[in-house]
Amino acid sequence: MPIRTVVWNEFVHERENDAVRSIYPDGIHATIAEALGADPEIAASTATLQEAEHGLPQARLDETDVLVWWGHKAHGEVSDAVVERVQNRVHQGMGLIVLHSGHFSKIFRRITGAPCSLRWREAGERERIWTVALGHPIARGIGPMIELPNEEMYGEPFVVPEPAETVFISWFEGGEVFRSGLTFGSGAGRIFYFRPGHETYPTYHHPQIRQVLINAVRWAYNPAPAWVDVAAAPNVPVERAPEPIVRKGPSLHKGGEEGYR
Amino acid sequence: MPIRTVVWNEFVHERENDAVRSIYPDGIHATIAEALGADPEIAASTATLQEAEHGLPQARLDETDVLVWWGHKAHGEVSDAVVERVQNRVHQGMGLIVLHSGHFSKIFRRITGAPCSLRWREAGERERIWTVALGHPIARGIGPMIELPNEEMYGEPFVVPEPAETVFISWFEGGEVFRSGLTFGSGAGRIFYFRPGHETYPTYHHPQIRQVLINAVRWAYNPAPAWVDVAAAPNVPVERAPEPIVRKGPSLHKGGEEGYR
Amino acid sequence: MPIRTVVWNEFVHERENDAVRSIYPDGIHATIAEALGADPEIAASTATLQEAEHGLPQARLDETDVLVWWGHKAHGEVSDAVVERVQNRVHQGMGLIVLHSGHFSKIFRRITGAPCSLRWREAGERERIWTVALGHPIARGIGPMIELPNEEMYGEPFVVPEPAETVFISWFEGGEVFRSGLTFGSGAGRIFYFRPGHETYPTYHHPQIRQVLINAVRWAYNPAPAWVDVAAAPNVPVERAPEPIVRKGPSLHKGGEEGYR
Amino acid sequence: MPIRTVVWNEFVHERENDAVRSIYPDGIHATIAEALGADPEIAASTATLQEAEHGLPQARLDETDVLVWWGHKAHGEVSDAVVERVQNRVHQGMGLIVLHSGHFSKIFRRITGAPCSLRWREAGERERIWTVALGHPIARGIGPMIELPNEEMYGEPFVVPEPAETVFISWFEGGEVFRSGLTFGSGAGRIFYFRPGHETYPTYHHPQIRQVLINAVRWAYNPAPAWVDVAAAPNVPVERAPEPIVRKGPSLHKGGEEGYR
Repeated sequence: MPIRTVVWNEFVHERENDAVRSIYPDGIHATIAEALGADPEIAASTATLQEAEHGLPQARLDETDVLVWWGHKAHGEVSDAVVERVQNRVHQGMGLIVLHSGHFSKIFRRITGAPCSLRWREAGERERIWTVALGHPIARGIGPMIELPNEEMYGEPFVVPEPAETVFISWFEGGEVFRSGLTFGSGAGRIFYFRPGHETYPTYHHPQIRQVLINAVRWAYNPAPAWVDVAAAPNVPVERAPEPIVRKGPSLHKGGEEGYR
Repeated sequence: MPIRTVVWNEFVHERENDAVRSIYPDGIHATIAEALGADPEIAASTATLQEAEHGLPQARLDETDVLVWWGHKAHGEVSDAVVERVQNRVHQGMGLIVLHSGHFSKIFRRITGAPCSLRWREAGERERIWTVALGHPIARGIGPMIELPNEEMYGEPFVVPEPAETVFISWFEGGEVFRSGLTFGSGAGRIFYFRPGHETYPTYHHPQIRQVLINAVRWAYNPAPAWVDVAAAPNVPVERAPEPIVRKGPSLHKGGEEGYR
Repeated sequence: MPIRTVVWNEFVHERENDAVRSIYPDGIHATIAEALGADPEIAASTATLQEAEHGLPQARLDETDVLVWWGHKAHGEVSDAVVERVQNRVHQGMGLIVLHSGHFSKIFRRITGAPCSLRWREAGERERIWTVALGHPIARGIGPMIELPNEEMYGEPFVVPEPAETVFISWFEGGEVFRSGLTFGSGAGRIFYFRPGHETYPTYHHPQIRQVLINAVRWAYNPAPAWVDVAAAPNVPVERAPEPIVRKGPSLHKGGEEGYR
Repeated sequence: MPIRTVVWNEFVHERENDAVRSIYPDGIHATIAEALGADPEIAASTATLQEAEHGLPQARLDETDVLVWWGHKAHGEVSDAVVERVQNRVHQGMGLIVLHSGHFSKIFRRITGAPCSLRWREAGERERIWTVALGHPIARGIGPMIELPNEEMYGEPFVVPEPAETVFISWFEGGEVFRSGLTFGSGAGRIFYFRPGHETYPTYHHPQIRQVLINAVRWAYNPAPAWVDVAAAPNVPVERAPEPIVRKGPSLHKGGEEGYR
């Protein structure tokens, strides 16, 4: 069965701004889903902010293996209930790919617990994305470097938790650097942040960028069954302790009682 | 100047339960603050749920170097505004020590982004806390092992992010294990989770446990000035780029404009 | 193409000790290779200390995707040249699974740079291996715990670098704990250390242990082409710099010269 | 007591090359030791390749808290015995600061187990070292960036283990990036790699670079007593197990026997 992937986009700039629409006439989500479709092992569909429950009802998330997230202007319009739902699904094992300005999305800030802040400049400058972890699955087939003629600059410090792996680091024409490809884990889920993709440039049409997206979806996919009770804190009664023990000392809880949350 | 440390406690069980009160007549916070007071480099005070703003108004947090957190029954009563305030202060550089049942506190779940779930059993069984990172500052002077005659059992999986360092691991009489001392970072802040401390046992009177608490406060202390704009995402205008560049291509933002959040 | 896996064994105790031979009549390597053979995606062969070049000539290593290593009594008899060869292949992308007493093998100590020391006791005591990272590929299908009725005890501190992930932690009847499943990376290679497997007990006949071995081989496999020049430090001449630059200041090296090693 | 710091230098280029001598007339080691001397909590001395045992006899290392290492042309002339001695002292808790071309030193390659390879260009180009971990002790007082008008370029991939923390990342005029400040641990020792310092440029006279060196020595210092038996693997006899157990099953070792190495 292919990797069931949902590409989520706030889908605002493409409808408001001529420059953006000319690059992504059907929305960034459509372009990314098309890119992922080049891999027969990925089955990509899309969802947008404007749909009911932002296109992410529980039943759909339950059948999603990897979620790709692009947002920028409308982070605040995403409902907290949907964000919590996405977070729980990541804990259960759903992969999450956060793109570009998604660094400030509710879901990325919640699941990292960090400010996710950075410096930025929109000047269409040259970006070179260097591969740091050449042996990493997300870098497969990418080679030493991706050169983008025009991109928005993001500069360090990028205030996120120390990543599991630094896969890519960007060089910018204006003099800054940025950790552009970072992996994290949360529960049974794998998370990849990938920097490029400002909406006024054709970044998601670039073949190497599209390859990174495919690689990232494959890497983030956890084929294990969903860990549905990942947030549960079950009591292990004395009589079911692996070693035989007897209860000693004073207690707060009666046998079989649930814990506090 | 000593390390300004606030010991926070929900202070519920000590007032409701005779067994707990007999061990911690003035509250767990008082006992821990007393323990920390043995170190002349630490200036410990206390705060509780019942105080205005839970004893943690912004002005006090701004002058706090390390916050120690004990909660269990009343996690849900802690105001979200205070939790967010604490989280921001950790990002700015305040240390955070989360104790025992604080694994399910709002602040720990928010700052890790994880479920923070585990298995548990309240049977007063024997716990041995083994030192895994013998060279770590938090383990200084502790030796290979701490033995507690009676404790609540916490069992793996403990669903938190992969820690920076695993300092302690516990063995339980009933057959389980648990990563009992874990370090994390968030922004400029250091976080330590320390497992033992069930309220029905005299754990915080134990000399080695008290030494770990002192060590943890010293380790978590960041003497740098607060990183007050840690969550800001400043624009770097083209004319202030480190390298001279000229603006190219289409733009969303006008010069000097703020970014979206 | 299946994952080309070589199971290496020093193959000493099985020939010297009746108890060991009765459990592993053809050697531990044969039993492990047989276990791996249950997975059609793995093609397992064996190699032993006694063979020419310990059965690991360069040509064979070049066609090996994952190497499994079991050694105990004869670490010192392994030639340094073979160890360096294995290390280089791991850097190029070959997976490495180090088992039990292999913690003190030359290859594990070299590739971690650490003492790899621990405490131990051979008393046939009960071991419970708890799954810490339930969502990890190496834990797939294992469930919460593996119980072994008789094993050698290994105790913390296990002096290895902070692992990428802690997958398993063991509980021992005699009171100790140990991080029994740890992942590391080196160059393009993935490394997994797995604790159980003392030669006087039938551990590698245990179904869950065999499943962990299969999972570990699959996890350690890097399908990318070998990174053959992983240790090279190529000069990037001024005229091939990504950005046009001119040479400035004094130099040690002439253009095109190789660097020092 | 101040931090007893030894600055080690191969001291070759300063005696052979006029350009280097003009910048470091008494050797790079003298300049770095002088820089460290600005901190009253650091007591810096020097050692060079040419001295007996390269100036690092066991007795001196035993009284060294932090070792700073600069080498380039003569890595191969450093005796393996001294390298092993240094490695053991790091495991015991001695800090190690590896500078610039020391990435290919025997000690750095041994203690990381990695190739430590990179790309390079000696063109006197501009380097900007960006602070990634603004709250890290090594970055204290450095601010967002260090600009060096002339430096050798080092480019990614830098093939080292995933670091504990990425403190600095460099931008180069010619278009490359490099992780310039990385922390690692080994046993009880802390290790910091710091990139800048090509011998034909006055990098170690730069005030911010000197501040980083001071910060790094303070960070790497482990005040705990040396962990002298860090490499030992003591047997824990059955009669000294924390829990009372009885020996079961067959054994290789007799009681009290030493393990194999």
